[in-house]
Amino acid sequence: MITTSLRRSALQQVACPTPAPDSGCVQLGHGSGGKMSARLLRERFLPRFGNKYLDGLGDGARVPVEGVEVVVSTDTFVVSPLEFPGGNIGHLAVHGTVNDVAMMGAVPKYLSAGFVLEEGLGFDVLDRILDAMAEASAACGVEIVTGDTKVVDRGKADGLFVNTTGVGFLSDGFRPAPDLARPGDSVLVTGPLGRHGMAIMAAREGLAFEADIESDTASLVPLVEALRVAVGAGVHCLRDATRGGVASALNEIAQASGVGVALSGDLPVPTAVEAACEMLGLDPLYVANEGVMVALVSPEVEADALAALRAHPVGASATRIGHVVAEHQGMVVLRTGLGGTRVVDMLPGDQLPRIC
Amino acid sequence: MITTSLRRSALQQVACPTPAPDSGCVQLGHGSGGKMSARLLRERFLPRFGNKYLDGLGDGARVPVEGVEVVVSTDTFVVSPLEFPGGNIGHLAVHGTVNDVAMMGAVPKYLSAGFVLEEGLGFDVLDRILDAMAEASAACGVEIVTGDTKVVDRGKADGLFVNTTGVGFLSDGFRPAPDLARPGDSVLVTGPLGRHGMAIMAAREGLAFEADIESDTASLVPLVEALRVAVGAGVHCLRDATRGGVASALNEIAQASGVGVALSGDLPVPTAVEAACEMLGLDPLYVANEGVMVALVSPEVEADALAALRAHPVGASATRIGHVVAEHQGMVVLRTGLGGTRVVDMLPGDQLPRIC
Repeated sequence: MITTSLRRSALQQVACPTPAPDSGCVQLGHGSGGKMSARLLRERFLPRFGNKYLDGLGDGARVPVEGVEVVVSTDTFVVSPLEFPGGNIGHLAVHGTVNDVAMMGAVPKYLSAGFVLEEGLGFDVLDRILDAMAEASAACGVEIVTGDTKVVDRGKADGLFVNTTGVGFLSDGFRPAPDLARPGDSVLVTGPLGRHGMAIMAAREGLAFEADIESDTASLVPLVEALRVAVGAGVHCLRDATRGGVASALNEIAQASGVGVALSGDLPVPTAVEAACEMLGLDPLYVANEGVMVALVSPEVEADALAALRAHPVGASATRIGHVVAEHQGMVVLRTGLGGTRVVDMLPGDQLPRIC
Repeated sequence: MITTSLRRSALQQVACPTPAPDSGCVQLGHGSGGKMSARLLRERFLPRFGNKYLDGLGDGARVPVEGVEVVVSTDTFVVSPLEFPGGNIGHLAVHGTVNDVAMMGAVPKYLSAGFVLEEGLGFDVLDRILDAMAEASAACGVEIVTGDTKVVDRGKADGLFVNTTGVGFLSDGFRPAPDLARPGDSVLVTGPLGRHGMAIMAAREGLAFEADIESDTASLVPLVEALRVAVGAGVHCLRDATRGGVASALNEIAQASGVGVALSGDLPVPTAVEAACEMLGLDPLYVANEGVMVALVSPEVEADALAALRAHPVGASATRIGHVVAEHQGMVVLRTGLGGTRVVDMLPGDQLPRIC
């Protein structure tokens, strides 16, 4: 039995302060993957760095090398705590970047790794994180080919941050992109939603949920490869549903493609995640996943795509959650249990900061 | 006039605690680029990640893409303070990685950029850093093609950290490497030593030296290209003399190649740097540079190499500082003013932490 006071206090701890986007400085919400992040990029980064590769704001860039295109993607990991049920920051650092490369339609091959270590970080923790990176890299078929370690004084970092940058190779004719969604496309998700975010939340706040929730951190490379082989160019968009969850991934696609997304309301949310979200006042559509992607595919290949995904353990519970529509362009709309609809907008700031 | 007590207090502030390498946790010295860094890599990272690309511990990796080799290099920047005479962390983030790619013999082409922003970082500071990155990228002929921004709560970082990863293209027959030094090679440096480290130190400690010292942060790409065109495979080893300075760069080369290095003692140290080093008890051979490289070249191409370097402003004061010898393998030895010699070993830990 959870009292209201516990619920309030938990919420106060986990929620960010109300964002004040014009305060003249960086706020936690700028790291959310939501509206504040988008505005930070649009106002400060793109005007300075903008070029044809960066402007797409995809999960990475496709750049020419010796007449062929390769994919480059980068991600910095700042998750707190460093270790959580189901994994640690080392798993995320490999899976996160490998997955971003895969979302561009490429097979990841090389990783770089750049560490910021805080003075006083125990070698036992560091070793477990490096073990996780080594295991995950081997499982994903990537090699860590170059790296860097920096150390900052005690109190100037939070244990360990790590950046990984991935390079991957493309196959002919397979170029999913956020702006390729078309009305009629089926919107698939490859697994149950919300596990990573709620596992982090439980670890961070010392909350005990009725059922243990583990992070879903996993490589999506085999799922992308399965889709490529099974339905090829029938795959229009791929996006891993990390920061900002499925809601943000679909909003970005809807905006990039100039289409609407209609969700059926029948979402694969595990009971334990649903209960935990209810307790904390969170919406599972916005909770981060680290082993789930959304895939928008032509309706005629939907059955083959689902079969291909379900043949792999990580995609065993792949399912359709909605359709692309020509109406309400740039918006995601959810049919509610009562037969109404509600707009699933991007959040301004963070539900859960420091999630990856 | 500087009193002894001021000198002691400045030294106590800037020097790291005596390293205790077996304390079971990360210490500042592990980020030095010296012996503790090497041990951390050898004991914790290489056994887990080791592969033919990483094991060379070069400034980057040469990896095959579609039958050709490309260079990938990564560097994370944690310099404190973020802004200093002559530049800011944005200049370092571009020049540092671009230079590492160049040290592998490649022309850098693409950069990724991964930011850790601390809540509360002023947009004015962020804007100046992004401006510097944009300017430096344009000047170096590289494009920032993909990126990531994360935000951590106040007190959990130190303003801003940034990782850049670079991809560069190689030319036929130009593959300098740390293990290619041969007895007889001329040891060249491309500019005056110690400016970056002392500029940081002055900014950090609020020290006023008699003459202003500015960081030498600069792209080394034109110098490498000039050497390639002028003397090609006559260039055996290139290394930018950053963390750990010229001493560490040459020790790494001596060990990788199984040769000795004999320095003449006639080192290009600006008077202001020499005075500042003397005041703080530092040795300019170990002080970081961000726009100086050591180049080991065949003796028969020395004159052409120096001419090529001096034709460019960044290399205008390029000079020979010593030779590679068959004796004292793996060691660097300096001829002193009194006619004796002293061993220039790698330092165990840091002279100057958080330098880049």
